[in-house]
Amino acid sequence: MGKRVAIIGVGMSKFGELWDKSLAEISLEAGMYAIFDAQVKGKDIDGLIIGNMSAGRFTGQEHLGAQAADWGGLGDLPAYSVEAACASGGAAVRQAYMAILSGEHDIMLVLGTEKMSDVNQSMAMDTISVASDWEWEGMFGATFPALYAFMARRHMMEYGTTEEQMSLVTVKNHKNAAHNPWAQFQRPVSLEVVMKSGLLADPIRVLHSSPISDGAAGLVMCSAEKAKEFTDTPVYIETSRQASDTLALHDRADICTMGAVVSSSRSALKEAGLAIKDIDVFELHDSFTISEIIITEDIGIVKKGEGGKAIQEGLTEIDGKFPVNASGGLKARGHPIGATGVAQIVELALQLRGDAEKRQVDGVEKAMSVNIGGTGATSIVHILGR
Amino acid sequence: MGKRVAIIGVGMSKFGELWDKSLAEISLEAGMYAIFDAQVKGKDIDGLIIGNMSAGRFTGQEHLGAQAADWGGLGDLPAYSVEAACASGGAAVRQAYMAILSGEHDIMLVLGTEKMSDVNQSMAMDTISVASDWEWEGMFGATFPALYAFMARRHMMEYGTTEEQMSLVTVKNHKNAAHNPWAQFQRPVSLEVVMKSGLLADPIRVLHSSPISDGAAGLVMCSAEKAKEFTDTPVYIETSRQASDTLALHDRADICTMGAVVSSSRSALKEAGLAIKDIDVFELHDSFTISEIIITEDIGIVKKGEGGKAIQEGLTEIDGKFPVNASGGLKARGHPIGATGVAQIVELALQLRGDAEKRQVDGVEKAMSVNIGGTGATSIVHILGR
Repeated sequence: MGKRVAIIGVGMSKFGELWDKSLAEISLEAGMYAIFDAQVKGKDIDGLIIGNMSAGRFTGQEHLGAQAADWGGLGDLPAYSVEAACASGGAAVRQAYMAILSGEHDIMLVLGTEKMSDVNQSMAMDTISVASDWEWEGMFGATFPALYAFMARRHMMEYGTTEEQMSLVTVKNHKNAAHNPWAQFQRPVSLEVVMKSGLLADPIRVLHSSPISDGAAGLVMCSAEKAKEFTDTPVYIETSRQASDTLALHDRADICTMGAVVSSSRSALKEAGLAIKDIDVFELHDSFTISEIIITEDIGIVKKGEGGKAIQEGLTEIDGKFPVNASGGLKARGHPIGATGVAQIVELALQLRGDAEKRQVDGVEKAMSVNIGGTGATSIVHILGR
Repeated sequence: MGKRVAIIGVGMSKFGELWDKSLAEISLEAGMYAIFDAQVKGKDIDGLIIGNMSAGRFTGQEHLGAQAADWGGLGDLPAYSVEAACASGGAAVRQAYMAILSGEHDIMLVLGTEKMSDVNQSMAMDTISVASDWEWEGMFGATFPALYAFMARRHMMEYGTTEEQMSLVTVKNHKNAAHNPWAQFQRPVSLEVVMKSGLLADPIRVLHSSPISDGAAGLVMCSAEKAKEFTDTPVYIETSRQASDTLALHDRADICTMGAVVSSSRSALKEAGLAIKDIDVFELHDSFTISEIIITEDIGIVKKGEGGKAIQEGLTEIDGKFPVNASGGLKARGHPIGATGVAQIVELALQLRGDAEKRQVDGVEKAMSVNIGGTGATSIVHILGR
């Protein structure tokens, strides 16, 4: 492309069960912090894109773009929502990337948001199923833990992956989240506690699964040229790539791999002229810990089948060769669905700026996010650099 | 901008109550017709954007982008949904416009879709309210007919607009829809029948309101340079403009005008170097007939307050000076929410190509669509040309 898009501001709301705040309030909070961080004025912003999966079902409100523009006092700027299931946040970042490259927008506010705790657990579970193939999966009772259980069980059978390895992903991500002030679970958990936690869908346990969360994340994005007016330390989106796979898990030839992750990550690396070893820090979509293991393999950190061993050997720890989810990931930072893809980029921007405090990875020059929807029917990969 | 984006294929499903088809099926139908019309191959398409408001609530399925790519056999291309309430279709067109201008995509399939009849009327009404300010309007019982009734009553008070004038919009749009093979209501209605139809919210009657509809519309879009490979008669998007207003009606200084429509239409005309008199045919968002009257004024066809008189004098008839909704509009073509903004562009493309058969307006060189969300919190304007 030649042209690059810059991130000049980042913001987050706390992730967790935010009983005393509305969806609009948490979105605003993240957006305001991002605007403050960017040191831009509200009137400089000329477009707003908001990643969200199911506010209509979780809160009764759609039309979130216009609402955020209105509540934020941002004037009459164009405002949209973007949806790609659990990859809605990544989709919003990608849409803003294209909108800025197109020349139609100069400085955009990108939000990702979801408020899941306003409905009861049963309704939340039912709503999450909108990301699967409802007619062929959800309707027959295959919840997301069940679908990922198929993938986990098969991965164990094919490659000898163990429950302990899946549990060690949790231990690592909770340890990292202890240093993330926005994380839902800012505390370590022991391997023993994870392995004794309740079964959701054998072999997946409660502590192998990301939680039901409320939260929002925000970015201020602009063209690379424009960025210099506002900051000396912009972070750049070097490539943005997306791919799709079958919506239903049973339509795939191999459920131990996510084809869309393979193709979008390869394409992103190629476009950026980089190899996987050039990436210094990763945010990978660990909605379930088996998902982090599979994605670690699919993007080429290790060979297929060796993701379990990689976690056991510490390869993906903050001080390992390929640090994954220094933020705590979806497991421990929390997974307010539409917010996740934006929160991944917030974390990577902080890592690139050297602002990640106690969870900082040393010498970060390049960073990669993988945000997936459903069981991998959507994959969105961003590579960021300084 | 200099650069333009072309429309090289259009397609529609029938609009109506489509009991025997699923949301995915009607989306596919519109998409397949558009691909066939464009004479491109599925593998030439490298991106899919789908406008939809509330499939999660109407059908239990989100993640429509991945689903459409999967069901359409389109391979692993990037696929998203876009939402801006009743302007979701227009937002999808605008996103595709930017995606192509950005250079990230060459040939895109744009769909708009909604299936509203799978839930009962009460649930449908409740779901439509997600487009209003739920906490301050919907929750207190202000349905969309009620909100538009406020606007209509005030317009009658301020400008002497009459029930007969609001009814004549219905008569015109049904007359036009009689020649539209995709329309939900392909039959004329008399003024007497409209004025005697049941009251929804005084002064708005059933026949002043767009119906609950199922349906989908599709476009194949590409860069202007690329278009020449496929067709000798491309249609161009000359400008795409969007604006926002307060989400809640009660936050506006004047409810007889839609500020977002005023600013987005002026900005679009200015960008295109055109005046309103240069536009030969219009698709304006008549979710209620008072809305067509207000928009007719807000875009400058007539002065504020004269929209009622304009319809009475035949100014907006197919053979009038400013033909509005030759397709039948939302009132008579039907209003499957996410499909509407795309269907407007399909109609204008047909008018520009001279393919609109018995509803063809003579000598169309320039065309304009206005697609709004809610009571005008979002407005998206496209100007098309040959």
